[in-house]
Amino acid sequence: MASIDETIKEMARAARRAGRIMGRCPSAPKDRALLTLADLILAEAGTLKAANREDIAAARQRGLSAPMIDRLTLTDATLTAMARGVREVAGLADPVGSLGPARVRPNGLQIARMRIPLGVIGIIYESRPNVTVDAAALCLKAGNAVILRGGSEALASNRALAEVVGRALAQSGLPQAAVQVVPVADRAAVTALLQQEEDVDLIIPRGGEELIRFVVAHSRIPVLKHYKGVCHVYVDEGADLAMAEAVCFNAKVQRPGVCNAMETLLVHRAEADRFLPAMGARFAAAGVELRGCPETLQRVPAAVPAREADWPAEYLELILAVRVVGSLDEAIEHIAAHGSSHTEAIVTRDYGRARRFVREVDSSVVLVNASTRFNDGGQLGLGAEIGISTSKLHAFGPMGLEELTTTKFVVYGDGQTREP
Amino acid sequence: MASIDETIKEMARAARRAGRIMGRCPSAPKDRALLTLADLILAEAGTLKAANREDIAAARQRGLSAPMIDRLTLTDATLTAMARGVREVAGLADPVGSLGPARVRPNGLQIARMRIPLGVIGIIYESRPNVTVDAAALCLKAGNAVILRGGSEALASNRALAEVVGRALAQSGLPQAAVQVVPVADRAAVTALLQQEEDVDLIIPRGGEELIRFVVAHSRIPVLKHYKGVCHVYVDEGADLAMAEAVCFNAKVQRPGVCNAMETLLVHRAEADRFLPAMGARFAAAGVELRGCPETLQRVPAAVPAREADWPAEYLELILAVRVVGSLDEAIEHIAAHGSSHTEAIVTRDYGRARRFVREVDSSVVLVNASTRFNDGGQLGLGAEIGISTSKLHAFGPMGLEELTTTKFVVYGDGQTREP
Repeated sequence: MASIDETIKEMARAARRAGRIMGRCPSAPKDRALLTLADLILAEAGTLKAANREDIAAARQRGLSAPMIDRLTLTDATLTAMARGVREVAGLADPVGSLGPARVRPNGLQIARMRIPLGVIGIIYESRPNVTVDAAALCLKAGNAVILRGGSEALASNRALAEVVGRALAQSGLPQAAVQVVPVADRAAVTALLQQEEDVDLIIPRGGEELIRFVVAHSRIPVLKHYKGVCHVYVDEGADLAMAEAVCFNAKVQRPGVCNAMETLLVHRAEADRFLPAMGARFAAAGVELRGCPETLQRVPAAVPAREADWPAEYLELILAVRVVGSLDEAIEHIAAHGSSHTEAIVTRDYGRARRFVREVDSSVVLVNASTRFNDGGQLGLGAEIGISTSKLHAFGPMGLEELTTTKFVVYGDGQTREP
Repeated sequence: MASIDETIKEMARAARRAGRIMGRCPSAPKDRALLTLADLILAEAGTLKAANREDIAAARQRGLSAPMIDRLTLTDATLTAMARGVREVAGLADPVGSLGPARVRPNGLQIARMRIPLGVIGIIYESRPNVTVDAAALCLKAGNAVILRGGSEALASNRALAEVVGRALAQSGLPQAAVQVVPVADRAAVTALLQQEEDVDLIIPRGGEELIRFVVAHSRIPVLKHYKGVCHVYVDEGADLAMAEAVCFNAKVQRPGVCNAMETLLVHRAEADRFLPAMGARFAAAGVELRGCPETLQRVPAAVPAREADWPAEYLELILAVRVVGSLDEAIEHIAAHGSSHTEAIVTRDYGRARRFVREVDSSVVLVNASTRFNDGGQLGLGAEIGISTSKLHAFGPMGLEELTTTKFVVYGDGQTREP
């Protein structure tokens, strides 16, 4: 039997070969494979749910928490949503082969950038099996091959899904190795995958901070990731306080468990008296625990004192840190010191301060008068997203199809030579 | 005395602070600093050459080769060229703060990408001191801070140049820590720099393959690099053979020691009899050693047999591998098997094969009917370049000012909240 290292190495080589075929594949066969996949997910719902039941039984035996088991479970509703997602990806414009604006040099050379696939992408993620299909669909549409490594607790589900993806590829005349699922649960498989720098071009980890730190520490391949989202809303002096309340409530409460939810609220001192008591009461009524600076505590009786560890905290639940600041500069400094370069918003009526916030806050998405919850590929109009990057290289912010590609230079000449 | 690790860590922290100031600096002070720098390089020519003489004396003592000493030497001509290069960078358009096309979502949110600096860039390079100034100028114009680590044999020159850069920054009201030269020759300084992933955003190594492999193996920071340039020209069936001869001669002979020079010539069998004897004679007359496949040897008496190791070789001198192929597919396969994703050209009259070559060859620059020597930021119209990337992430091909930046999303709203 082959060792894990050999298995992974052979998968990576097969992915490279498949990636070359995918890279020159026009849109039609790729879209055909995606539509076939959507059909097969529904047609094979029984098989997929049966495989999923194996994972759930094992998870129960291992005593996984109810929310973990919930995220692991495939239902008719999740399969239908999965198939709909794949159809949406099929409907997106194919980025591959598009040419940017061409310039002409004085010697007549015509130069443009052509969008091309990255090649082979490795996705390392935790238990949700829907990532298997979402990620496969996006990578495939962008002309890449992909190696998927889901959580060990979803192995049976992921293998069943991979089998369906493979049939869709084969039925459309595309190489099955374009989408491969790592078939072993051993963590050594992750470490081995992260060493295949010759055959894998990009690693995208999706999951908790611990998983992502492990991947970054061990990878010889470029990694696109975000560790966490410590998102801020700053309510400026003179802001429309009704708007500020709506934006802040939405940013914190609408879906507190996600990376673009607000974790810290910054309020200008001039608005603290008018804004904080009502906002605090509304948060408290919604079950939000408030952890405030001393000036917040004076205005929000329900708040408890914030500690230093609260400012960089990503709660991912109904807890909010609140701080009163004396100026825009102080807000920007607070964000630079404690933020995660993910998402920040200002609520303001002032033109100059809106301009300064947008320019000086060093985050992947900076919003004026809108909720942090809009940092999402779909909401920002990129189509489906494969993740959010707070790394600045290659992609910064939500990553859609285009971020799964790169460009090469194409030069058309008439025999030009270079002198000198 | 501080340890090397502490010195480098403090430099990286200072660079991060300076980078934040540079990042929000408008164009005028940056350009003023560059023009001041150009003036100071000329005004301080005596001091710079004196420092350089120390390096040259030490290099002679250590027995460095004449070409190495030549690359190390600062003359009035190289200083004038350096100053001219800095003025050219000052004249380039500032990419920072520019907004791409905005889209409007159905809810009225207006979304655009704003170009922003990367932050802090580390450049690790070998002996040529002109890189110190070129790299500093480009990084500074793009709003970044930079840490420079040149070859130990150029340390005195680089420190003198850094002193001049620092004065130009200070005279323009910019932080001197925006450009820092690592003050110690010890290689441990490189290793320490490669660990500063919190404060350094990108590493660009420039030098031989050994240096680059060392950097990639030790870096926790993303690296943009190319290992080598094994560039091909393919002379297609039916090509204009006079054009093919001019392109091939230019690609090999005009400057053989650089990464975009041709290293392997591929000729379609149908043209071999007409093309190779004359081309071979012209190369031989220019002192080019030809290493050919058996079919080449039949047509070029001066050629010696190529061995397997010749196909992936980057000679960087007047040696050329030559192979006769039966088809465009065979040429593309050869390039995929032995190339370095750097630069490839086709000489052809055929529309369909030009299209296929451009689409299917997976290199950073693909040319039709033009010399490989055009893979260069200046030649392709990017302005000055900081290097060439054959990594696909972030930048693929020559890297100019824009590749020293990234984009963030800017969202303008009127109080929008997200549902669901």
